[in-house]
Amino acid sequence: MTTTTKPMIEAYPAEITLDRTKLAATVNALIACSEACTSCADACLSESSVAELTKCVRTNMDCADICGTTARVLSRHTAYDANISRSLLEACAVACRSCGDECAVHAGMHDHCRVCAEACRACEQACRDLVASMS
Amino acid sequence: MTTTTKPMIEAYPAEITLDRTKLAATVNALIACSEACTSCADACLSESSVAELTKCVRTNMDCADICGTTARVLSRHTAYDANISRSLLEACAVACRSCGDECAVHAGMHDHCRVCAEACRACEQACRDLVASMS
Amino acid sequence: MTTTTKPMIEAYPAEITLDRTKLAATVNALIACSEACTSCADACLSESSVAELTKCVRTNMDCADICGTTARVLSRHTAYDANISRSLLEACAVACRSCGDECAVHAGMHDHCRVCAEACRACEQACRDLVASMS
Amino acid sequence: MTTTTKPMIEAYPAEITLDRTKLAATVNALIACSEACTSCADACLSESSVAELTKCVRTNMDCADICGTTARVLSRHTAYDANISRSLLEACAVACRSCGDECAVHAGMHDHCRVCAEACRACEQACRDLVASMS
Repeated sequence: MTTTTKPMIEAYPAEITLDRTKLAATVNALIACSEACTSCADACLSESSVAELTKCVRTNMDCADICGTTARVLSRHTAYDANISRSLLEACAVACRSCGDECAVHAGMHDHCRVCAEACRACEQACRDLVASMS
Repeated sequence: MTTTTKPMIEAYPAEITLDRTKLAATVNALIACSEACTSCADACLSESSVAELTKCVRTNMDCADICGTTARVLSRHTAYDANISRSLLEACAVACRSCGDECAVHAGMHDHCRVCAEACRACEQACRDLVASMS
Repeated sequence: MTTTTKPMIEAYPAEITLDRTKLAATVNALIACSEACTSCADACLSESSVAELTKCVRTNMDCADICGTTARVLSRHTAYDANISRSLLEACAVACRSCGDECAVHAGMHDHCRVCAEACRACEQACRDLVASMS
Repeated sequence: MTTTTKPMIEAYPAEITLDRTKLAATVNALIACSEACTSCADACLSESSVAELTKCVRTNMDCADICGTTARVLSRHTAYDANISRSLLEACAVACRSCGDECAVHAGMHDHCRVCAEACRACEQACRDLVASMS
């Protein structure tokens, strides 16, 4: 887990509408997925079969960007706007689903795709769980 | 308009499902909104009334991040995934609506909020237009 | 030019140490370069010769990230810290030089590399000019 | 530690010039610092004394952006360019120093500044150690 996520949520000086433990778990899943996707895009570029991995690279880049942005939005609690968080979490779950599906295709061949697919699945689930807890 | 958006879309070597002119307009609106929101968050910090602008700063930060990420996703055309683009554009429109509403509250007092509110409105409309053209 | 850069700098409510016109030009060059690099990385993925363009994709991704971050830092003027701006501009110029050099290798073959190389050269120059004006 | 950093570095299919353990530690420090700075900027906005924390918010935003970008660049190993990594790590160390200094001023009053200052110090050291190992 990212070392600062939980202590920073605990140090927030005002109320947080969402459950802090669930929120921290989601932020950590987002950060881990963003890091995995950035790394997987690059690892694909170094495979001799890169021409067959271009969809994987592209989806990884999208997923890395969307997860990174979602982690930042969820790390802010001032003037909380449930509409922004919910719609962004839903978009993030869609990106994680697509990226996890694509990485899973190559998971038997490439360890980076296997690790990344797992990170995408975990992140998709965390996003959906948090959305479910919001309503 | 950002000088490179249109020539880069024209230089893309394969098919693009979406209308290239509409796509370029949306990317430009996203980039302009992201830049305005980053600047407005900072300008608010330099106002003596910053304590009344904290919601504005926070929403600006979210909107800057989400618009920046959406611009990047829309600048990629390889292995296009309509589900990711659509859900992200919808989340982005939500963020632009919230940020535009908040900036509009302060538009009479602060020129940076007025310019930023206009950029948010234009970006929200561009996102909604592009989503409408996708179905 | 990005439509919001200049009006947002003009709307900043306090003093800006750097020349506002030069600053706006640099931010615009950074935004244009970041957009070009994001697009060029993706366009390379759609070339049949992608296996020969992996260095270009990777350098494009770095340059897109660094230019985007530098544009954000330069769009903030509150509590200006010349050391951060200067060292980041120097790092950005290094990234633009590398990316411009790599794109230039492929400029005769691929229009996206040609446009991107020009954006990198212009951005490198803008970064160096701004650093020169700071001392 | 971010759960995916180490396994993704281990799964990279080609040579990495830098020491993989040291590299993973630096990426983790960068991710933790970026997350802490994003959270600290927001926590400052919720303090009643926000008017005295505007320098902290601004430096946090810069440091979050720069650490996030540096983590991404260091997560890529294809076509490694030591000049980009070195200059970016140096810029990142400068940002971490400034942000750590500013957060330290408020560490006795605000727990979020105390945790963030520690993350900045650790990240600055990790960046400097990695640069030292590169020459």
